[in-house]
Amino acid sequence: MTNVLTRLAQTIETRKGGDEKNSYVASLFARGPDKCAEKFGEEAIEAIIAAVRNDPKNLTSEAADVLFHLMVMLSSRDVKWEDVLAELERREGTSGIVEKQSRSK
Amino acid sequence: MTNVLTRLAQTIETRKGGDEKNSYVASLFARGPDKCAEKFGEEAIEAIIAAVRNDPKNLTSEAADVLFHLMVMLSSRDVKWEDVLAELERREGTSGIVEKQSRSK
Amino acid sequence: MTNVLTRLAQTIETRKGGDEKNSYVASLFARGPDKCAEKFGEEAIEAIIAAVRNDPKNLTSEAADVLFHLMVMLSSRDVKWEDVLAELERREGTSGIVEKQSRSK
Amino acid sequence: MTNVLTRLAQTIETRKGGDEKNSYVASLFARGPDKCAEKFGEEAIEAIIAAVRNDPKNLTSEAADVLFHLMVMLSSRDVKWEDVLAELERREGTSGIVEKQSRSK
Repeated sequence: MTNVLTRLAQTIETRKGGDEKNSYVASLFARGPDKCAEKFGEEAIEAIIAAVRNDPKNLTSEAADVLFHLMVMLSSRDVKWEDVLAELERREGTSGIVEKQSRSK
Repeated sequence: MTNVLTRLAQTIETRKGGDEKNSYVASLFARGPDKCAEKFGEEAIEAIIAAVRNDPKNLTSEAADVLFHLMVMLSSRDVKWEDVLAELERREGTSGIVEKQSRSK
Repeated sequence: MTNVLTRLAQTIETRKGGDEKNSYVASLFARGPDKCAEKFGEEAIEAIIAAVRNDPKNLTSEAADVLFHLMVMLSSRDVKWEDVLAELERREGTSGIVEKQSRSK
Repeated sequence: MTNVLTRLAQTIETRKGGDEKNSYVASLFARGPDKCAEKFGEEAIEAIIAAVRNDPKNLTSEAADVLFHLMVMLSSRDVKWEDVLAELERREGTSGIVEKQSRSK
């Protein structure tokens, strides 16, 4: 049994090369990876604004948009959703992302 | 059996009110929701840059960071991860997010 | 003699409360400060993408868009352009922003 | 007589190839154009958050940071500040950026 994110990633993948007129995802892919990245960025900003406004309902909706457009951006660069999950599992297995992360940023 | 994202969301939730010195997540929560949103934004930008550079390995890692900090931002506003998944399922059930979306944005 | 940025800031200011149908700026103001901030964010992301792509011509154009929408965002919160310039002059006068900047970020 | 923005752009330009240890700008340039773009993006997000919070004092300061890091990003790609001003003047001369803009975005 797959969950909604896995299904969504699979559906997005099937839209590659699809008909732009009938598919929002196909139209994004047709505009190229940079445009997919730009759309992801727009959704990220909308989510930030919803979070700062403390608008939980809108934040829920914008977070869904972020996930969706993150997947489109990944797919536009042939990065698989399961690779991202595997990266999170790897961190979980080693030091734990949560406690991490001697960032020098 | 839960997947890595569900586990991660649960772990983040347990860090609320935790010791800032020992937990990166607790230290983010302690700085407030706006700081959590800011961190999410920084990770989103890093993911965008990795996508535009066409650096799949880095993009995978940055996408993992985006997911992690998205969850922290959501949790800082008491939005549950499962609510976001439910929103994606709702869209799937009705018109399908993929084919959508008469956005007026 | 005023320069183009001063003129632009003045023109934007005069559009407040103007007719949305005839003025792009008035239509932004009418949608509220959060929408002005969102538009600024979109332009910032486009500028970032142009910079990472190393597309100087596009970067020049996107930087102009950033400045324009920065001014709209500022005006939507009644922050004056000259106050931002004064802040830059203040930094110049004291330690110099360039050599900055014991940031605790 | 030059204004603060022109002086700032000139000062930034002189930091190219300078000593990273003594100059924040030189240290940004040394990390490359993508890092300069990332820093600009971080400042843009902080300005957005200040605008959404309706914190005019902080917004003024963040807008100054945005301008500064916009200049660094431009310089890292050898785009001149005066070229951006010229682009704004060009728009002013033709249709006027304020009233425009048959954007198809």
